[in-house]
Amino acid sequence: MTALQKLRKRTGELADLESVQMLLSWDQLVMMPPEGGRARSEQLGTLARLNHERARDEQLGEWLTEVEGAELGELERDIVRLARRDWERARRVPEELAAELARAAAEGQQRWQVAREADDFAMFAPALERNVELAREYGVRVAGEGLTPYEGLLGDFDFGLRADELRRMFGALAEALPPLVGEAERCSPQRTLDVPVAAQQGTVAGVLGRLGVDRSSWRVDVSAHPFTAWIGRGDTRLTTRYSDGNVESLLSSLHEYGHALYERQIDPALVRTNLGRGTSMSVHESQSKVWENHVARSAPFAELLAGELAAAGFSIAAEELHATMVGVKRSLIRVTADALTYPLHIILRFELELALIEGGLAVADLPGAWSEGVRRLLGLEVPSDALGSLQDVHWGAGTFGYFPSYALGCLIAAQLWEALERELGPRDEDLRRGEVDAIKTWLGERVHRHGRRLDTTELVESATGAPLSIDPFMRYVEPLAQPRP
Amino acid sequence: MTALQKLRKRTGELADLESVQMLLSWDQLVMMPPEGGRARSEQLGTLARLNHERARDEQLGEWLTEVEGAELGELERDIVRLARRDWERARRVPEELAAELARAAAEGQQRWQVAREADDFAMFAPALERNVELAREYGVRVAGEGLTPYEGLLGDFDFGLRADELRRMFGALAEALPPLVGEAERCSPQRTLDVPVAAQQGTVAGVLGRLGVDRSSWRVDVSAHPFTAWIGRGDTRLTTRYSDGNVESLLSSLHEYGHALYERQIDPALVRTNLGRGTSMSVHESQSKVWENHVARSAPFAELLAGELAAAGFSIAAEELHATMVGVKRSLIRVTADALTYPLHIILRFELELALIEGGLAVADLPGAWSEGVRRLLGLEVPSDALGSLQDVHWGAGTFGYFPSYALGCLIAAQLWEALERELGPRDEDLRRGEVDAIKTWLGERVHRHGRRLDTTELVESATGAPLSIDPFMRYVEPLAQPRP
Repeated sequence: MTALQKLRKRTGELADLESVQMLLSWDQLVMMPPEGGRARSEQLGTLARLNHERARDEQLGEWLTEVEGAELGELERDIVRLARRDWERARRVPEELAAELARAAAEGQQRWQVAREADDFAMFAPALERNVELAREYGVRVAGEGLTPYEGLLGDFDFGLRADELRRMFGALAEALPPLVGEAERCSPQRTLDVPVAAQQGTVAGVLGRLGVDRSSWRVDVSAHPFTAWIGRGDTRLTTRYSDGNVESLLSSLHEYGHALYERQIDPALVRTNLGRGTSMSVHESQSKVWENHVARSAPFAELLAGELAAAGFSIAAEELHATMVGVKRSLIRVTADALTYPLHIILRFELELALIEGGLAVADLPGAWSEGVRRLLGLEVPSDALGSLQDVHWGAGTFGYFPSYALGCLIAAQLWEALERELGPRDEDLRRGEVDAIKTWLGERVHRHGRRLDTTELVESATGAPLSIDPFMRYVEPLAQPRP
Repeated sequence: MTALQKLRKRTGELADLESVQMLLSWDQLVMMPPEGGRARSEQLGTLARLNHERARDEQLGEWLTEVEGAELGELERDIVRLARRDWERARRVPEELAAELARAAAEGQQRWQVAREADDFAMFAPALERNVELAREYGVRVAGEGLTPYEGLLGDFDFGLRADELRRMFGALAEALPPLVGEAERCSPQRTLDVPVAAQQGTVAGVLGRLGVDRSSWRVDVSAHPFTAWIGRGDTRLTTRYSDGNVESLLSSLHEYGHALYERQIDPALVRTNLGRGTSMSVHESQSKVWENHVARSAPFAELLAGELAAAGFSIAAEELHATMVGVKRSLIRVTADALTYPLHIILRFELELALIEGGLAVADLPGAWSEGVRRLLGLEVPSDALGSLQDVHWGAGTFGYFPSYALGCLIAAQLWEALERELGPRDEDLRRGEVDAIKTWLGERVHRHGRRLDTTELVESATGAPLSIDPFMRYVEPLAQPRP
């Protein structure tokens, strides 16, 4: 075999191992009996070690050196470019640090769970300190030339993002969004919708069916926290959850559909290469937000949803459903936040994790800084740690630099949707009828098919003709603060 | 790390990889959407290659040489002994042969499927020839000193079994069983039971619940062919299938329960070592046959089953149910054969695969030899290839030397059951009440806890105080040929 063949064989193996890890995690959250947890941790640990070992081995470096001098086609050049990048990053993390990160993350997650139940940040603080310390060390190592430790961490989720750029955009949002919140709250319906679970289930099944979800290559299951797993071509699995008295299942199933569609529409030529998955967390989140914010929360789609709900036995006017879906109400909790206040929750976390990693914020001072931020950004008082800095698992699980992608996803989605409607014309008629083929095709062409060949900022510019900006998102949320007819 | 620690770490990894492969196969058969098949083959292929590579690497041999000179505890001695055995076997198979075996097996399985549908052996013959040729080469390589190629193949499923011993026992069965069949058929009920699927489901759930199957560490699902997967401690998954008009689901769920219980009762100290699974296919099959033949097909257990069926809305006398469960009727198909004729189907396959591998039987002559064997052993005429030599997937999938374990399982089960009742007294009262704790404990102590520490013949002798023999099985089947009151 030539060096290039060996390299491609290795990328195929690594892609398979990632798929296998994803299947194990899906199974753990959806199918596994509870007492299987310990064995599953061992299995996932072994796969992660094997993956890391094969991603950083000497031979791979030798093959790279050999092929980098060769005449290569366009696709192969990208395979080699990303293989070099991934290998360099993996090489910068010694085995012992990788093991210690995994150990501390498992421990931290467990301490976090206990502390949250006890509503006591002090119980969590030592584990968090350890996670911050290790994340800083990891960030320093992977950062590469000219980048800060936090940018090193960001690179795992969104390669190429700079902290200054985030500071600038998030700073502008932190100025522009809060003034809209009061007015938007006044325009929002006061009561929640009491949609029975059975009607939600029928509606979710009906809507997903219209979007092309069928049994030949999809699964739709229930899990405690909705998520999507792409196990392989022809095997996409999304989950949702149902509870009485809200319509979260309708939004969340469309959200997950967006993640799923991204992976499904990647160019088949990239399967089992290192390019064959979504390029970054923020672009992934943008794909879910396109379907959650711009499809599910649109007025015409509310007509379709109301029709499906009626068929499932729950009668509601499309206008009332739409008003509920776009309703704004400040809250202390990120995961249930509305489309307008959601980015404010993320900006808070970005500011704080940046300060923890490289700004000198001490872990002990985190609850105070959290309360101050919530007051400034949302105008609310934080009554307890459980409703404050203990609400998210991320830092306990050793994940720093991930939060920005949630807000960037909202921005990118709005920018993509504007470009899409600029080119294809308004989608109202299609959405009313549940006709989404043109939307799927446009997203496939502009975003999905590229896989990892384009990084976040490059992709946004190539797809929309403009650099990433907060303006389209502001144009999307401003109407939420205007009285509806 | 010492060489022993490195060795144990490696056996832990290999055990994890096996568990992961089992989960992927379970998922494929129970959960995966149909279009996920191609990606799943790639994933399983990659895991098999990684596993093979790590099972045969040089380093492992160096660690072994180092620890074999050292002072070791009893458990460690067995770990090292089996690690040496497994490593030597893996070393004897070159990568290219392993890859070619896998490729030919996949191809053969596909050709088999097409040929069976077309009912045309000639379409399958070339692929089977290739599989026979490769199996012979593999058998020669792994056999080791003093063993024949067929015994090399046997060793993958039942280490230490000798072909002469099988010839002797199977020859005796081939003499002793056919004379019983006619009389047993005359004693058997002529009509089948029309148990609705819902009543079967309720009964299976009720019975498994009594045996200790609960949601905390078990799953029970439906699949086209019943099987059991042990994914890890606290994660056992059995499957069954339901169809109107028979009671197969009752027998098959007890059968699978036996496999599951074996793996669950292995000594916890063996978890993630190379000793922590069932020792052989024949002992595994014996554990399923204990529950299928000696529990589910017993007269007192029929009382319990009849009670569960009644609770699920289907009324039947225990005697009638029992008569159906032990009914004998010759047929051409192995998988639905009764307890008496089942071994005859296996003996046929053993004779033929032995002749294919080392006795000079040409593939082209297989259908004729099959017909001759069915006439001799079962007194039936084979009307077509689909009902003859094309009925099983094994040879198409490149599996030779596996069939004997099905019949050996029947023999070992009968021998274990006799020993158990000799020591604990007749179990009739317990079975009538669904009280199986004493049976589980006895099997755990004598069979399960040892894992791979004892090989088949050693284990049978240690558990029952006597070498493996056909006599207990004959004593079990003889009453089937006697008129029931």
